[in-house]
Amino acid sequence: MSACQTTKRVPLDEIFSPRSVAVVGVSASKLAFAELVVHSLKVAKFPAIYPVNPKYQEVLGLRCYPSLLDIPGPVDHVVVNIPAESALALLDECAAKGVKSVHFFTAGFGESGDAERARLEKQMLVKAREGGFRIIGPNCVGLFVPKSRLVNHYDVPLEPGSIGFISQSGGHAQNLPSYSRARGLRFSKVVSYGNALDVDESELLDYFRDDPETEIVAAYIEGVKDGPRFLGALGRIAARKPVVLYKGGKTEAGRRAAHGHTASLTTSVAIFEALCRQVNAIQVDDLEEMIDVLVALRFLRPLPAGPGVALIGAGGGPSVLAGDGMEREGLRLPPLDAVVQAELKQNLPVAGGIFINPIDTTNMTDASAISAAMHILGRVPEIHMLVYHLGFHPIGSWGMGRFSAKSFLDPAIRAMKGAAEATGKQVLLALRPPEDLEGMKEFLAAQEAFVEAGFPVFHSMRGLARSLSRALGWSRRCALRGSAAP
Amino acid sequence: MSACQTTKRVPLDEIFSPRSVAVVGVSASKLAFAELVVHSLKVAKFPAIYPVNPKYQEVLGLRCYPSLLDIPGPVDHVVVNIPAESALALLDECAAKGVKSVHFFTAGFGESGDAERARLEKQMLVKAREGGFRIIGPNCVGLFVPKSRLVNHYDVPLEPGSIGFISQSGGHAQNLPSYSRARGLRFSKVVSYGNALDVDESELLDYFRDDPETEIVAAYIEGVKDGPRFLGALGRIAARKPVVLYKGGKTEAGRRAAHGHTASLTTSVAIFEALCRQVNAIQVDDLEEMIDVLVALRFLRPLPAGPGVALIGAGGGPSVLAGDGMEREGLRLPPLDAVVQAELKQNLPVAGGIFINPIDTTNMTDASAISAAMHILGRVPEIHMLVYHLGFHPIGSWGMGRFSAKSFLDPAIRAMKGAAEATGKQVLLALRPPEDLEGMKEFLAAQEAFVEAGFPVFHSMRGLARSLSRALGWSRRCALRGSAAP
Repeated sequence: MSACQTTKRVPLDEIFSPRSVAVVGVSASKLAFAELVVHSLKVAKFPAIYPVNPKYQEVLGLRCYPSLLDIPGPVDHVVVNIPAESALALLDECAAKGVKSVHFFTAGFGESGDAERARLEKQMLVKAREGGFRIIGPNCVGLFVPKSRLVNHYDVPLEPGSIGFISQSGGHAQNLPSYSRARGLRFSKVVSYGNALDVDESELLDYFRDDPETEIVAAYIEGVKDGPRFLGALGRIAARKPVVLYKGGKTEAGRRAAHGHTASLTTSVAIFEALCRQVNAIQVDDLEEMIDVLVALRFLRPLPAGPGVALIGAGGGPSVLAGDGMEREGLRLPPLDAVVQAELKQNLPVAGGIFINPIDTTNMTDASAISAAMHILGRVPEIHMLVYHLGFHPIGSWGMGRFSAKSFLDPAIRAMKGAAEATGKQVLLALRPPEDLEGMKEFLAAQEAFVEAGFPVFHSMRGLARSLSRALGWSRRCALRGSAAP
Repeated sequence: MSACQTTKRVPLDEIFSPRSVAVVGVSASKLAFAELVVHSLKVAKFPAIYPVNPKYQEVLGLRCYPSLLDIPGPVDHVVVNIPAESALALLDECAAKGVKSVHFFTAGFGESGDAERARLEKQMLVKAREGGFRIIGPNCVGLFVPKSRLVNHYDVPLEPGSIGFISQSGGHAQNLPSYSRARGLRFSKVVSYGNALDVDESELLDYFRDDPETEIVAAYIEGVKDGPRFLGALGRIAARKPVVLYKGGKTEAGRRAAHGHTASLTTSVAIFEALCRQVNAIQVDDLEEMIDVLVALRFLRPLPAGPGVALIGAGGGPSVLAGDGMEREGLRLPPLDAVVQAELKQNLPVAGGIFINPIDTTNMTDASAISAAMHILGRVPEIHMLVYHLGFHPIGSWGMGRFSAKSFLDPAIRAMKGAAEATGKQVLLALRPPEDLEGMKEFLAAQEAFVEAGFPVFHSMRGLARSLSRALGWSRRCALRGSAAP
């Protein structure tokens, strides 16, 4: 292995911008990952896609080559979906072809628990070092780099953004960009790295630290093979950029799954969490929470100066729920003094209303009411942000008109923008998604308009409160360290 | 007041089955509650609806009467949406007309904080006692009794069911039936009781205890005026039926909102929670959780004998997440011995799979794979239930076909039913709702089929795990008390 260690490795930057991609082991089945990649690369208009399989002349309208070596031009990146047994022979071809990176979707290596397969994995690494190329995976979905049109799924946003995401899980690597698309999140690079045979979490974190295209880093990690090295990398990047970390395998069952999934030996949860706190990484407990925290970090710039919230919306019961939900997560709803209450009552319909923060009045879908409430509340010094909440179930179907109609929505957005500018307090939205088709049309139209207008949108009060609490905690710790939030 | 106390009150059963309803203060505005009620009663085909307002000849195609006294036939129930100032005069008319119950949507009484308005409220109670009728509210949305076609919202399921719900909040009273409709929840009676001037939570709990139509009781309570009386009623009903309790106003902000909302003086959270534990009421923290627990209680009969779960679904990362989510909530994923693992490997595709509980294989949307896995796992004694999880985002759009298609779904449901019958272990589903229109169509079709087939469906692993944990804890405490679950 000593020879390998001295070989100069291909820098990740080159791997993230291949000029051509070969997909080896592409099949004619729409259920197969390799064909999904070819389809997705086509959708993304990637310039040079080479399907490889001796069985086919053509795949999805593209010429299919019998082997890697039959491809006429140079090949930078190879996506592999062939049986594990054929991996070493393919890597010899990769070396001969002079490729820069090989991504193995193929699983059934170390994570299978089979000693022979674990040995095979080690031999693959030797081949990579000797051949002068890098390996992504095995057992993962590989790379998604919007700027390079390098994609592994068609259902992901192609506009480049500022979030870098590394994920030991392929599912999460595809789901995060897909699920968060309508919330306005966009990505610089997403790397699913599976068993982390070669390119691993530590190298990727160091890369993102220096990557000018990446401002926020998200990571899904099941286990790390070199703890001290990982902690060093995490500390270095967290000192410079916000890092949102989702550690899978925190329970016995999760750990078992993680080991079966990516051969990860997870460390003690308590130790891991303590180390993350020490370097000021933001920890989350699932994918929804990760999305929520990323939305907060991406849209609230700078983050609010404190935990004071004015809560504005319709409904007494929902207001009680929202107030409870906020304070349970450590945010604070400052009570309003008599002067502010009187001013609210002058400007809003009184009957059935609540004027003590949370604020509830019967016409809280009316732009002028929203505007009046936000202007008044935004001037209260203890209030650091304005949260507007709305459910999308029955509303819009009777009487209220459609909140998603331009005549409702445009003035509401103008009112919120105006209040934010006048008071310097940011506006956040909690829009409860519906569970019916009509409501979903409403919801999507409204969400799109709010996100386009630059507002952070959350899907539950609990989610908004929890993620905001995490982001504010991170920012407070940055300040305690004597540095502004990076 | 002594005279009032001796007056025989109208029993609630009579109030829940009125033959005619007058809606006083109906307006021509679709934004007004009173017109929503008239519309909803019409949609529900309630037999005798009398809009009352001297300004109109006709409302929504129905003859509108100048006053209550002008209505020709008898009036059992009156819905009121007139200014608080006119309340006493109206109650005199109610007495003259011989009505049984008056529901005040009208707010602006005790909850307004105004002493004069609080006095007015007390006078209303005197009128009710003297007039021999009951008051619901004020400041609430009143009654929803499917069997009587007595409704306060058109967006609620009209088929009667076995859940009784009392809610101090009108919003929650309308939202719970609406939000949980597609999950298969149906209601015997829903009572929004607002300021609880006359009919209050304690009387309602005593009523539901003896109501043969009500098997499960849900309650949203902001504050109780007579603590010992409430605790007595709660203890009596909880000894006989499962009670799911959502206490609003647990934080400072929530308490403030609750006071402004229904004039509730909330008690100490710690004391309230301890008392609920003492009587074995099931406490939840929001409406979603309440729905989840009700789904568990309604569909899992009897509840699983223990916390052992076999988790089956597609995706490594999602499996890790699901395993963590389960055990974090106190459920248990028993590890599988070598014999069971070998049996699974013989029956499922091996590559990329996890066979150690959670179970993940690449074709987990295939009925025969689902069937094989469930039959094998259902025979493991430490496994008490089978949980299947599926996301509805990218699935269905590429390759996998539509999971909601009958050709996919029907065999899957047959497989699950067959496994449940063969092994005696119940099947639960965690179906992640999508955030797009296409996915929503998929999701709704699949959810409907599963719910119709009698399966409990949850929308997140966290929700499934938390509610199941609460239901199992309740059932365990029932057993400790020496009684089977009521």
